[in-house]
Amino acid sequence: VSTIHSVTKVHRIACIPGDGIGTEITEAAIQVLTTLQKALGTFELDFTHFDWSSKAYLERGWYMPPDWADQLRKHDAIFFGAVGSPDVPDHISLWNLILPIRKTMNQYVNVRPTRILEGTTSPLANVKRGDLDWVIVRENSEGEYSGQGGISHEDTPNAIATEVSIFTHAAIFRLMHFAFRTALSRPRKHLTLVTKSNAQRHGMVLWDKTFAAVAASYPAVTTDKMLVDAMTVRMVLQPSSLDTIVATNLHADILSDLAAALAGSIGIAPSSNLDPERGNPSMFEPIHGSAPDIAGRGVANPVGAFWSAAEMVRWLGEEKAADTLMKAVEEVTKAGVKTKDLGGSENTKSVTEAVCREIEK
Amino acid sequence: VSTIHSVTKVHRIACIPGDGIGTEITEAAIQVLTTLQKALGTFELDFTHFDWSSKAYLERGWYMPPDWADQLRKHDAIFFGAVGSPDVPDHISLWNLILPIRKTMNQYVNVRPTRILEGTTSPLANVKRGDLDWVIVRENSEGEYSGQGGISHEDTPNAIATEVSIFTHAAIFRLMHFAFRTALSRPRKHLTLVTKSNAQRHGMVLWDKTFAAVAASYPAVTTDKMLVDAMTVRMVLQPSSLDTIVATNLHADILSDLAAALAGSIGIAPSSNLDPERGNPSMFEPIHGSAPDIAGRGVANPVGAFWSAAEMVRWLGEEKAADTLMKAVEEVTKAGVKTKDLGGSENTKSVTEAVCREIEK
Ligand SMILES: CC(C)[C@H](C(=O)O)[C@@H](O)C(=O)O
Ligand SMILES: CC(C)[C@H](C(=O)O)[C@@H](O)C(=O)O
Repeated sequence: VSTIHSVTKVHRIACIPGDGIGTEITEAAIQVLTTLQKALGTFELDFTHFDWSSKAYLERGWYMPPDWADQLRKHDAIFFGAVGSPDVPDHISLWNLILPIRKTMNQYVNVRPTRILEGTTSPLANVKRGDLDWVIVRENSEGEYSGQGGISHEDTPNAIATEVSIFTHAAIFRLMHFAFRTALSRPRKHLTLVTKSNAQRHGMVLWDKTFAAVAASYPAVTTDKMLVDAMTVRMVLQPSSLDTIVATNLHADILSDLAAALAGSIGIAPSSNLDPERGNPSMFEPIHGSAPDIAGRGVANPVGAFWSAAEMVRWLGEEKAADTLMKAVEEVTKAGVKTKDLGGSENTKSVTEAVCREIEK
Repeated sequence: VSTIHSVTKVHRIACIPGDGIGTEITEAAIQVLTTLQKALGTFELDFTHFDWSSKAYLERGWYMPPDWADQLRKHDAIFFGAVGSPDVPDHISLWNLILPIRKTMNQYVNVRPTRILEGTTSPLANVKRGDLDWVIVRENSEGEYSGQGGISHEDTPNAIATEVSIFTHAAIFRLMHFAFRTALSRPRKHLTLVTKSNAQRHGMVLWDKTFAAVAASYPAVTTDKMLVDAMTVRMVLQPSSLDTIVATNLHADILSDLAAALAGSIGIAPSSNLDPERGNPSMFEPIHGSAPDIAGRGVANPVGAFWSAAEMVRWLGEEKAADTLMKAVEEVTKAGVKTKDLGGSENTKSVTEAVCREIEK
């Protein structure tokens, strides 16, 4: 006998809350996602928790076990909270946790959308909702984060350190295709290339050339070019002139924080570390850090984590779930249920509960 | 017979107008400086012009002659307009003009003050004059502008380029002393170190260590540390928490453009490329570029050049002249005589004449 039944898709999510407010906002995101799956009933999320954090490192001497990559590859996506602790030098924590994941999981693009959410305001006087609607496409595998370099004559007056940025045509080429496709998918279809090729003559010039070559395949996308320093000026003074932006690992790191601030708060911004070929799980994380100053007090803004969660379910094919979640988030910000960074007086719990209630409506 | 007479100090200024609006704002600055010297009568400026520009390069194949350094060393200071032309790749123009001057003249700090001038406004809604008053001390000799690196397999799919940033204890140490002394000279006496030592483990960690070591000699200076990405957020959302800032060549390049935009316009901001040991002439230039889009139309904002000129005469010991010039500039902006970038409708000539009239008062 065979029974006709609807198959509910199960998505396996690896959860890495990490440090500081990472644990608080991850918990909030799971609560919201669980509410979402119940409300829609069309998919299931199966969460596995990994205690890979600075706290655990201090206790046992390691962040991730030797088979970490295999463990993560058993999942369809990774949800990441935050990393960074006052008790561990940042270069230790990052190079033992977030950076190896990005690199080993072939997450070669980091997508960082920014816009002014309903009920929130930009710190810029003349900028209204809709004037600032950007997607930053960040190179996520090499460049200034290649990890090469070292130090000689350490702790002497002759100390000399190097940081070697590696830029390969292969990595730039695949990134540019992704960036052009992203631009194509947006109403404005405009892509701005950011480099610093006046001062950095080698890698940045390779970026310029590769961009120009790939552009030829996307005639429907309009383009322009900015130097990274001048780009900050344009973001502040002409935000509505920008749409999709592609930049190096470091430049986009800086510009995406600036973008979030100009949209109101670093607490709202999401990021998607993607393996566009889907050979590995992609990773979703708010762009804010572990914020040790407010950790443990239940006041962190969970919106960046919710938006990241929405991007995660969208990546997993659950478009409707993603839209429902973002709509709920914006209903809540619109109603003024906001944490302090957005000018409100709510906390993580009350914002989370408000979003859950919206979803259940 | 001997005659008692007062000796008028003569300062020899090398003028390099360069490209685009560089020529227009240099001319304006010379006009204002000439008025200033006449009005005060306590010093003389002796200008020598150098036609080292992209236009000249296109005609004759070189920017500067072989003995350029000797020629410049015959002067007490260098006034620089701007460099960059649509007809020459930027990495060619910069590495043949401005960057060799900064490096060869041992101008190892680049000082970039920013504040909101009288009669001008910040694009930030809640920021008033006085809320934003910063000095960025930029490393100007190495780091991301070291010029090392190269490209292999050029123009093939296997192309790989490197940019090697060099960070030496010697350069960081002398810079930090300068930065702490700058902080000491300001009312707030606060210095913020900007690095990216979480991602860049070698050079940036050397920055952190050297900063901490030098800090011990300046107990009167309070300090804090920011990652460059988070720094942009703080500049936007908590501008009044900042005072003096020290950062690498690239980070400070980016942050100083952002600072100028947040203070109202990139058109107002000055920079001083200093050899603090005074073994070579220092160089003064507005931080804006050659702006090919508006060049030749007489509409460039000359305020960045005036402020740079004020910093130049201050460096040459003419404190009173510097103060007089800046006071005149602010009387003029206060009276609403401003170019378009500052929300006004004046041009280079009318702003220049207004400043001259103020000086003559
Ligand atoms: C935590 C750190 C390594 C990270 C980065 O620099 O990429 C963060 O700033 C980010 O933007 O995701
Ligand atoms: C023209 C260019 C080399 C320069 C720099 O990057 O230093 C400019 O942006 C500046 O800030 O002075």
